[in-house]
Amino acid sequence: MDILVGRALGGDIRSLARLISLIENGDPLTDRVMRQIYPKTGRALVIGITGSPGAGKSTLTDKLIETFRRQGKTVGIIAVDPSSPFSGGAILADRIRMQRHTGDSGVYIRSMGTRGSLGGLSRGTREATLLLDACGWDVIIIETVGVGQSEVDIIKIANTVCVVLVPGMGDDIQIMKAGIMEIANVFVLNKADKPGVDRVAAEVKLMLDLVRDRPWIPPVHKTIAENGTGVGELVDSIVRHHEFLKTGTDGLRSEYARVSFEVEDILLKDLSRRAEKIWKTHRTQDVMDALVRRDENPYTVAGAILKEMFGLQKTK
Amino acid sequence: MDILVGRALGGDIRSLARLISLIENGDPLTDRVMRQIYPKTGRALVIGITGSPGAGKSTLTDKLIETFRRQGKTVGIIAVDPSSPFSGGAILADRIRMQRHTGDSGVYIRSMGTRGSLGGLSRGTREATLLLDACGWDVIIIETVGVGQSEVDIIKIANTVCVVLVPGMGDDIQIMKAGIMEIANVFVLNKADKPGVDRVAAEVKLMLDLVRDRPWIPPVHKTIAENGTGVGELVDSIVRHHEFLKTGTDGLRSEYARVSFEVEDILLKDLSRRAEKIWKTHRTQDVMDALVRRDENPYTVAGAILKEMFGLQKTK
Repeated sequence: MDILVGRALGGDIRSLARLISLIENGDPLTDRVMRQIYPKTGRALVIGITGSPGAGKSTLTDKLIETFRRQGKTVGIIAVDPSSPFSGGAILADRIRMQRHTGDSGVYIRSMGTRGSLGGLSRGTREATLLLDACGWDVIIIETVGVGQSEVDIIKIANTVCVVLVPGMGDDIQIMKAGIMEIANVFVLNKADKPGVDRVAAEVKLMLDLVRDRPWIPPVHKTIAENGTGVGELVDSIVRHHEFLKTGTDGLRSEYARVSFEVEDILLKDLSRRAEKIWKTHRTQDVMDALVRRDENPYTVAGAILKEMFGLQKTK
Repeated sequence: MDILVGRALGGDIRSLARLISLIENGDPLTDRVMRQIYPKTGRALVIGITGSPGAGKSTLTDKLIETFRRQGKTVGIIAVDPSSPFSGGAILADRIRMQRHTGDSGVYIRSMGTRGSLGGLSRGTREATLLLDACGWDVIIIETVGVGQSEVDIIKIANTVCVVLVPGMGDDIQIMKAGIMEIANVFVLNKADKPGVDRVAAEVKLMLDLVRDRPWIPPVHKTIAENGTGVGELVDSIVRHHEFLKTGTDGLRSEYARVSFEVEDILLKDLSRRAEKIWKTHRTQDVMDALVRRDENPYTVAGAILKEMFGLQKTK
């Protein structure tokens, strides 16, 4: 494993890919790898791209890759896909446009499934981001699908979160906007050539007016990702936000939140692993049958497992 | 608390509402309440409605309520909204159309925020569903926003999951469909008067052809929720699926999966609380500063905490 880490840090893509797979599969050596690479992290610009399906996130990501590449920066992409709760496998989301970059050694695209993971984003998304960072990738783009836990979690991993909206998404956009208003560092109104874009822009600005007293007011960019319109300005805003984080107290605050989340996440994953192991030993056919018949109660069963783990320690 | 439970089980809506609030806020008595009501659960038809924002889920839910009410059934609705990770508060998603049912004592509508919970759906969604079930509601509709963890989790709570698609949602629909194909028990192509509906229908059927050997082939319904077109047939399919679950081995398998998830979910919530609490006692300014400077490593910090908790016990 140490050899693999050495090679990945030295720039070997295949070793990097293998490490991410090991981490994604919950390999016991994950912690050891992370301990080794952690001191080398903290240099990359980590961008989160989120928004509802159909907003054009993949096309936009493709243009961001192009723009950063033109600036001579290397770009790693982590595409988080919803995956099947049955098969546990990731969906092969061949994000077709992005594929044209596969011949470019300065671009690394990685698809990760959500795998019914026990905590929001894919198992391993944070670790994969840290790995790419340690291996010297300049820009890391995390693209998530959907409006839900993954969107809430992405701010804990990314420095700069871009929320992509499009005109004409119907009533639910109101709900969406409210939930993501505090996540967004930059707003992107994509498909800006479609009717209704000014209405969406006005609505976003109206909501932003409510939070005027903040040190960073999220800029609102109109883009047409298909032909690249507005992407240059968007990249400027992203870089500007990154600079803002490096200098202000806001940046320090988000760093504190990030490391705190890291520790909590590691703790929770370890505890979950322990609980899963104990639950496996308790999950006999008899117990399952009793639960299904409702003769037994999942709260009592879980209580017994927790007692085995922690003895008489109280939760509260 | 026991009085509250007694009143809720006796049909008092205000007591039910208060119990859900207590559970949502992580009240320590939650487990006790759940232990009491659990034996009374398992009678309701629990329907999950999911799909991307703008698909018309709320309008569809409104029509489902209407149809079930006409059949004399009581309907409880849990609307899961994405919420802010900062404020922790639920978004007041005034799903306007549904509001017209508020005068009907046979309808109970409850909005729940996702609250940055560590496991997919809102904290308390499962508990609220069980409570409504125990209190004798005939039909429970869980409406989720987004394509992500919440969609993956909904099959663990709902008996019958309806996935709502609409024409013209762009490229990402391909990704969505792949991820939700195994979640859907019934497909709904809403806004069926819009152009492109036949293309979406053809795509869904093409994917369904790949899984022809299953005992339940998800039916594909075209609806226009706005005016109720196709909703009656949809309800028939939902009821038919519920019957299917009651008789076949498929139903038993999903019952096993459900109780197993329940135990895991209870464990995870307890463990999250413990992890948070333990980390709080260790999170000194010095440790935080060292972490932010990357002099200290979150994996080492978490490792030390775990050692303190479990001594030299190995995780694996």
